[in-house]
Amino acid sequence: MPEYRTSSLAKKLPSTVPFVGPEAQERAHERAFRVRIGANESVFGPSPQVKKAINTAAINAWKYGDPEFFDLRHAIAEHHKVAPEHIMVGEGIDGLFGYLARLFIEPGDKVVTSAGAYPTFNFHVAGYGGELALASYRDDHEDADALIELSQIHRPKLIYIANPDNPMGTWWPANTIEKMIEQVPDGSLLVLDEAYGEFAPDGVLPTIDPFDPCVLRFRTFSKAYGLAGIRVGYAIGEPTLIKEFNKIRNHFGVGSLAQAACVAALSDQAYLMQTVLDVAAARERLYQIALDNDIQSIPSATNFVALDCGRDGEFASTVLQHLIGNGIFVRMPGIAPLNRCIRVSVGEQKDLDQFAEALKGALKAVSG
Amino acid sequence: MPEYRTSSLAKKLPSTVPFVGPEAQERAHERAFRVRIGANESVFGPSPQVKKAINTAAINAWKYGDPEFFDLRHAIAEHHKVAPEHIMVGEGIDGLFGYLARLFIEPGDKVVTSAGAYPTFNFHVAGYGGELALASYRDDHEDADALIELSQIHRPKLIYIANPDNPMGTWWPANTIEKMIEQVPDGSLLVLDEAYGEFAPDGVLPTIDPFDPCVLRFRTFSKAYGLAGIRVGYAIGEPTLIKEFNKIRNHFGVGSLAQAACVAALSDQAYLMQTVLDVAAARERLYQIALDNDIQSIPSATNFVALDCGRDGEFASTVLQHLIGNGIFVRMPGIAPLNRCIRVSVGEQKDLDQFAEALKGALKAVSG
Repeated sequence: MPEYRTSSLAKKLPSTVPFVGPEAQERAHERAFRVRIGANESVFGPSPQVKKAINTAAINAWKYGDPEFFDLRHAIAEHHKVAPEHIMVGEGIDGLFGYLARLFIEPGDKVVTSAGAYPTFNFHVAGYGGELALASYRDDHEDADALIELSQIHRPKLIYIANPDNPMGTWWPANTIEKMIEQVPDGSLLVLDEAYGEFAPDGVLPTIDPFDPCVLRFRTFSKAYGLAGIRVGYAIGEPTLIKEFNKIRNHFGVGSLAQAACVAALSDQAYLMQTVLDVAAARERLYQIALDNDIQSIPSATNFVALDCGRDGEFASTVLQHLIGNGIFVRMPGIAPLNRCIRVSVGEQKDLDQFAEALKGALKAVSG
Repeated sequence: MPEYRTSSLAKKLPSTVPFVGPEAQERAHERAFRVRIGANESVFGPSPQVKKAINTAAINAWKYGDPEFFDLRHAIAEHHKVAPEHIMVGEGIDGLFGYLARLFIEPGDKVVTSAGAYPTFNFHVAGYGGELALASYRDDHEDADALIELSQIHRPKLIYIANPDNPMGTWWPANTIEKMIEQVPDGSLLVLDEAYGEFAPDGVLPTIDPFDPCVLRFRTFSKAYGLAGIRVGYAIGEPTLIKEFNKIRNHFGVGSLAQAACVAALSDQAYLMQTVLDVAAARERLYQIALDNDIQSIPSATNFVALDCGRDGEFASTVLQHLIGNGIFVRMPGIAPLNRCIRVSVGEQKDLDQFAEALKGALKAVSG
């Protein structure tokens, strides 16, 4: 095998990836999933206006996207009632996390997050040689106080929290996050991941202070807007910080088609509200499915629900394998005690009917 | 202005970008370009089959793209008659260059390229602290011998050459590149940028030796396939090297829609051949326009032609500004002596009619 003169950092990195796609599992099982409710995608899809915009944009697919995202940044800014210089667009929140890690992290730098929180953030931090200091979840919530305490010890460059949380679906009221922002140590930046923000009830998302240099917020078109297949996310923050991304990003990385789709998605807030209602109804159905099977569900402010299988990670993993073997794509948290749960994204009624039956079978099989 | 604890590398980076998009110029001039022939996009657009595929994929836009690009990698592999493990897909060649620089370059590492060659490659190298050693163009060609000589001195981690070249459109026969590959010093990697490869005549692209650890080749759907607006490129190379990208890339960065579009583009080789013919005809027209204006054109194997304005960079820049002021989007090389030229992408007949008239006016204005 040839030896390449890759960087000392690259040589140390594992080739493991944060998430294996459902397609890889389908290929391994030589069978397509009949229900795809594992990646917190929105089965309700994007607005019909987005589909129209994509069809129109297809005619212009030969043109590079505007590297400054003018129209999209303005639409996002208007939506959040901030000026466009507070907005950076990128190849999904994941892409922006990669850029953020690149901007801040040098080998040995500390980053604070929760054990079991979003692994792709950790992947990018580790990818630049950063070291994680981990707080534990408390009662299935990321522990805001513990994250701040740990930050006061480590003075990390970045502190991560998702509100609402993934993989548990739990949330904090805005004032908990606001208090956290106030307590961010000097020289630390709070990475506030609001990928599921559109699903949250009133009072969960803090008011945006677009000049606060202590916090950078992240949103996406992949979840509530139903556009995971075009990968666009954005950051909202203080303009000096926003501008830093220009030094390093893949300027033409978000194409014209994706930009047009996102502008259309933002313009149809009525559709978004309907999706949020559909998701809420499907979440209730998942709670009911848990009840019907005598297991607990964790109340969620997202488009998924963590179902507590009632024992340890090994048990939950067996349940998961049964579901997957039965054609149902779901995932589970990676770390105890969260991994006593499986994480089920909302689906359409027919998806959840099939899940309900498969779960019953799986629990029966593994308990018997 | 707040001070951020960004990395020592990030602090040193300029905020200049390789290319300002035409949209930014349109906003600055408060007027849309009437002819867009500056970014080497394909005005002939993608295949009708691609448009169909995009419309179909729009229905599934809620699904993340397969992070392993199974279908697309297999289609690319089949097209090039190699196995899929030789293929890596990314967010345009630019995105892959970013990953490549990240994998290899540490501060102070040397990279060899030509003065005036593709600036986005340099942007990514500099972004990881790499230092460029520059060979001069010779007779408007990247100088393969000089690049190798410089590489023998510096033993760089990466050596860049584009064949056919951008911004001059010139090319080398395959055996020049093959000889170059043979002479790559131990521990160096030749970055062979074939973004314009589909336009080249027979005998220009070397046969692919997919196990050669000395060369990594890059192709794109942005040029001949007419899909700049969805940003997908790929690398062809030795499998160990290809796998390295998995350690660091944005795994879900190329969405399901983009992947479906590229599979459809590859499947319509008849359309590609027609595009290549249309481009060749338009190139002839650009040569004729040069002749009509008593200026030289540089023979090109790409979808653009460098027109030699006959004096220095300042003169060419004035011609360029006239064209831009007259609603014609074109670009020019950044470095002498290449910058005696303007670089004009092929257009549809009506585009080139307008360009011909505008060029005549511009030359008259600046010469008079």
